Amino acid sequence: MEPVTRNYYVGIDGGGTKCKARLENAQGELLGEGLSGPCNPAQSAETAFASIIEATTLALEAASLPATKMSDLNVCMGLAGVNVARYRETAQRWIFPFKHTHITTDLHIACLGAHAGQDGAIIITGTGSSALASVGENLSSIGGHGFPLGDKAGGAWLGLRALQYTLEALDALVPTSRLVKDMCEALGTDEPQAIVGKSLHYKSSDFGKFAPIVVKCANDNEPVSLSIVNEGKQYLTGVISQLEKLGAKRISMIGGISSQWAKWLPDNIQQRLQPAKCSPEFGAISLVKHLVKES
Amino acid sequence: MEPVTRNYYVGIDGGGTKCKARLENAQGELLGEGLSGPCNPAQSAETAFASIIEATTLALEAASLPATKMSDLNVCMGLAGVNVARYRETAQRWIFPFKHTHITTDLHIACLGAHAGQDGAIIITGTGSSALASVGENLSSIGGHGFPLGDKAGGAWLGLRALQYTLEALDALVPTSRLVKDMCEALGTDEPQAIVGKSLHYKSSDFGKFAPIVVKCANDNEPVSLSIVNEGKQYLTGVISQLEKLGAKRISMIGGISSQWAKWLPDNIQQRLQPAKCSPEFGAISLVKHLVKES
Repeated sequence: MEPVTRNYYVGIDGGGTKCKARLENAQGELLGEGLSGPCNPAQSAETAFASIIEATTLALEAASLPATKMSDLNVCMGLAGVNVARYRETAQRWIFPFKHTHITTDLHIACLGAHAGQDGAIIITGTGSSALASVGENLSSIGGHGFPLGDKAGGAWLGLRALQYTLEALDALVPTSRLVKDMCEALGTDEPQAIVGKSLHYKSSDFGKFAPIVVKCANDNEPVSLSIVNEGKQYLTGVISQLEKLGAKRISMIGGISSQWAKWLPDNIQQRLQPAKCSPEFGAISLVKHLVKES
Repeated sequence: MEPVTRNYYVGIDGGGTKCKARLENAQGELLGEGLSGPCNPAQSAETAFASIIEATTLALEAASLPATKMSDLNVCMGLAGVNVARYRETAQRWIFPFKHTHITTDLHIACLGAHAGQDGAIIITGTGSSALASVGENLSSIGGHGFPLGDKAGGAWLGLRALQYTLEALDALVPTSRLVKDMCEALGTDEPQAIVGKSLHYKSSDFGKFAPIVVKCANDNEPVSLSIVNEGKQYLTGVISQLEKLGAKRISMIGGISSQWAKWLPDNIQQRLQPAKCSPEFGAISLVKHLVKES
């Protein structure tokens, strides 16, 4: 009976706001899941480590397994922030109580999940934006440069662009529009210095809160938001072409505003996108199973 | 003799990196100057207050006047950050040891200085960008929205745009160019994730350090930097037209990269700009003399 109890697999999806763990046995049956808090080592290494342990503990509990089984787990975690060398190194110095630990990016496990462990590419458009092609042994990332430097076509970028236009319109440098009116309504003021006072310490998630306004205006053919959306479409079209050049035959787009972007893209581009087959946690498990088999 | 000793005037220019004080007598003779550190209440109220006291003390010392004369000073200070209501309120709660204290924005005293206390408008293009028209009793500001929301045509904006293009080029989404080569040389790497690692916590001043590269490339007719510069030129042309609409007959442009922008602007726009007559500290003194006379 021993091999059955020994082979537990955990896939962890660690993002900026939450950490999800999925526990399976060797037969691929779901035993339990766990959900905890923020898990981005670039934001807080201590919090990220604690979130990983917590989500894993909760998954064991949900599977009615004792915490002592921790040392039997083969774990793969995909974490935000570890695309940057110094945060990857931080995560690699952590000492985990698991049997086997593999650390990669959240983008990598999302890509593996979307294509059920096979080759393919992923584009994530949520608050931020990034893309990855996984073809054979090669991983090639596009974007993921962070806000405000990158994240084009992400929610924070949409919100930033709308707020920039709004302030220029209130300065009478560009024509006013419905987008400006809707933004001022959401802000509760049309006084530029009051808006600056509100937005002075905005994080990307704060800018992202205005994305639904841009989406609504663009869907009503409001010209300013359409021009912002067009820039995003051009960027995503370029990303899709580049992922294809990197050899990706199957491309999926996931994240909070991905279905909206998919609708905005022209038909010939939409047709080049495929739905994601499985979750990032599933992708993480498929990777660790592969690695454990090889070792 | 009493009126002579009583009437001392101090003009203070408080910016993000330094604070300058100019001490004059009623006859407009320069008695002493003082220079201290950062003076932006939006960044640190305590530091800003201390910088104001230090620069004033140094100006008194330079004039061989005792510190007890502090209570004879009529002071006007133009501070960065106080365009935002809550920082203006912070500054207005400070208790100064002066006879008379007036607080306004750095932009306001720069405008008064540039036109020797008369009506006119000012555009500042340094690390950031902002503009103000002072016509009769009306003050109308344009820009000053902070980075990354605003500051178009400022040094940080030039640097951000160059870094954004560089990363998109390294992702093979846009053509490479000399600007990309020069940026990578300055960064010491052409590896996107290494660049992201470096720039993750950049402040506006860090982005501003790349501005000279954009300037050099644009002056050599490099197409990518020219297109960035063209967007800035269009913005500044719009600002100049709007300042004229607000009634400003005399417009000056000051700040670290203003002379460069002046060269880039077309002749017919250049001709609408006039050199600044005096310093911001002089502008502050002209304002406080006017206010003291009125009271």
